[in-house]
Amino acid sequence: NNTARHYLPVPVIISVIDSMVYSKLNVLHWHIVDEQSFPLEIPSYPKLSNGAYSYSEKYTINDAIHIVQYAEKRGVNVLAEIDVPGHAGSWGVGYPSLWPSATCQQPLDVSNDFTFKVIDGILSDFSKVFKFKFVHLGGDEVDTSCWTTTPRIKSWLVQHGMNESDAYRYFVLKAQKIAISHGYEIINWEETFNNFGDKLDRKTVVHNWLGGGVAEKVVSAGLRCIVSNQDKWYLDHLDATWEGFYMNEPLTNIYNPEQQKLILGGEVCMWGEHIDASDIQQTIWPRAAAAAERLWTPVEKLAKDTTAVTARLAHFRCLLNERGVAAAPLAGYGRTAPSEPGSCVRQ
Amino acid sequence: NNTARHYLPVPVIISVIDSMVYSKLNVLHWHIVDEQSFPLEIPSYPKLSNGAYSYSEKYTINDAIHIVQYAEKRGVNVLAEIDVPGHAGSWGVGYPSLWPSATCQQPLDVSNDFTFKVIDGILSDFSKVFKFKFVHLGGDEVDTSCWTTTPRIKSWLVQHGMNESDAYRYFVLKAQKIAISHGYEIINWEETFNNFGDKLDRKTVVHNWLGGGVAEKVVSAGLRCIVSNQDKWYLDHLDATWEGFYMNEPLTNIYNPEQQKLILGGEVCMWGEHIDASDIQQTIWPRAAAAAERLWTPVEKLAKDTTAVTARLAHFRCLLNERGVAAAPLAGYGRTAPSEPGSCVRQ
Repeated sequence: NNTARHYLPVPVIISVIDSMVYSKLNVLHWHIVDEQSFPLEIPSYPKLSNGAYSYSEKYTINDAIHIVQYAEKRGVNVLAEIDVPGHAGSWGVGYPSLWPSATCQQPLDVSNDFTFKVIDGILSDFSKVFKFKFVHLGGDEVDTSCWTTTPRIKSWLVQHGMNESDAYRYFVLKAQKIAISHGYEIINWEETFNNFGDKLDRKTVVHNWLGGGVAEKVVSAGLRCIVSNQDKWYLDHLDATWEGFYMNEPLTNIYNPEQQKLILGGEVCMWGEHIDASDIQQTIWPRAAAAAERLWTPVEKLAKDTTAVTARLAHFRCLLNERGVAAAPLAGYGRTAPSEPGSCVRQ
Repeated sequence: NNTARHYLPVPVIISVIDSMVYSKLNVLHWHIVDEQSFPLEIPSYPKLSNGAYSYSEKYTINDAIHIVQYAEKRGVNVLAEIDVPGHAGSWGVGYPSLWPSATCQQPLDVSNDFTFKVIDGILSDFSKVFKFKFVHLGGDEVDTSCWTTTPRIKSWLVQHGMNESDAYRYFVLKAQKIAISHGYEIINWEETFNNFGDKLDRKTVVHNWLGGGVAEKVVSAGLRCIVSNQDKWYLDHLDATWEGFYMNEPLTNIYNPEQQKLILGGEVCMWGEHIDASDIQQTIWPRAAAAAERLWTPVEKLAKDTTAVTARLAHFRCLLNERGVAAAPLAGYGRTAPSEPGSCVRQ
């Protein structure tokens, strides 16, 4: 759930929670902020939400509390994410000193104590709202070139004997410490593990996204892992079929029972570039339900091929429709419209 | 609203009514039945709904009452349609004698008294549920070839001195009489007017759909008219833009105030071939709202070009989103997904 590339109105998030319950999906990962907008009001640093798209495309703290409590009552935890230090360009609209410079706006300024004060303020506010034991700190797709092209930051790097890669690690580890100080365990995207795995706090869960084969390395290193390999479980990949969602196995090549336990689960990801309130439901459903069946079924009981699943999943999508959830037809890719007249249960 | 090419669950129809209210659209035209399915239970002839797609793709009479009353409380009348004699192939699943033959299933058998008994039973049941003063009897796209290729019907035609065209007229006028006997005024699609205009009952409203230029002929003949020209106001034409919806004028070439009064209004049509519960809302909205503004604004106050409307309609679509209605972005055709990250109000 990415609310920064397009704002998702509160009723839309509520409807996503309602529909998750039907599939027994029990964690809503809320990627709140991104480079395009900062839609959540943060009491400690109220100008952060100056980076929202507009006055009406903001969540108040009460909105966030409502969402978290609505979800909790339905057995769904809300995992909040602030994605640092990259993808954070919107933070500087209200506080320009968070940017390396007005013309080079991300990653967040690693050399500025104020950066970490703001992160501390956000996580302090989060700890009052988001009661799930994990917080997500992002850490993906960090392009550090603004650090070396900004004289102030470049001097700081030299002064501290760091190269860009060191500074990236320094930032991630420092943000982890702040999160832990507020009582959280941490999730980071896999680039942090790929770049400096053994330096991560042992409380870190590594969130795989780039593709297969990562989870087995993470658990070999003794860290926990969440699987979201984009080739299979990214809902914004419209050419990813429900069959692909169904057949994706988080435990691939992991045979040691102790290591299997380190796979906390899987997550399907709905990124916000091409979805908004108009098309999010049919981009999520029914493909997310195919993944949910895999996640909740012991491997030995799973269908060997998807033919046996088709009628059951078609029936489930009709049930979603009857409950008012705009789940798309099974036939065709992604959120394809029905190609011809017909019965719900056969499309 | 066509519930026969794809079934629309009751919550979806309710959500369409809710969203109509936001645009002051005040008649829901429910094209209940079509050749593909017969989803409504009819107490007088209970086997008709054997022609539904499945057990779960049916409306009970209580569903229909709920829909009508829910709509009435919100200022929306429900116009029910049975489309005869064409588009009625699903009727014979339960009562095969309504078909010319098992292999030639429409139009309804004009030679069989039972056909008109069934229509009488349906309209009798309708009169207890659908309290709007009009009923829609269809009459479009009638291919009479099954009548002449079926020996029984062919003999009947000869016996009664009718050709196919006479029989089509006979059918439509007889169905009109039945509807009037149940207290209804009648709406028929424009083919009935194009083929035998002066024979139609004076209580007939002609429903234009084929294109422009029809309304002026209808009102010249002294009949009332509803405008739905497909080149502008068919929502299933995904290449029809909101600007085209906005600029379409039902009173084109009608200058006489008495004749202008015979234009009862306009209707945007959402046919069901490629929409179902997954994509109906964003195929209707925001384009239907553009037509609604035209319908509710005196011609002299309408924007001369659509540039002045864009910001207002964009704001309205965001309001729809905030209320949980999946209205699509203005930019692009039909129900196009957002092309990039951005603010609702600018897409």
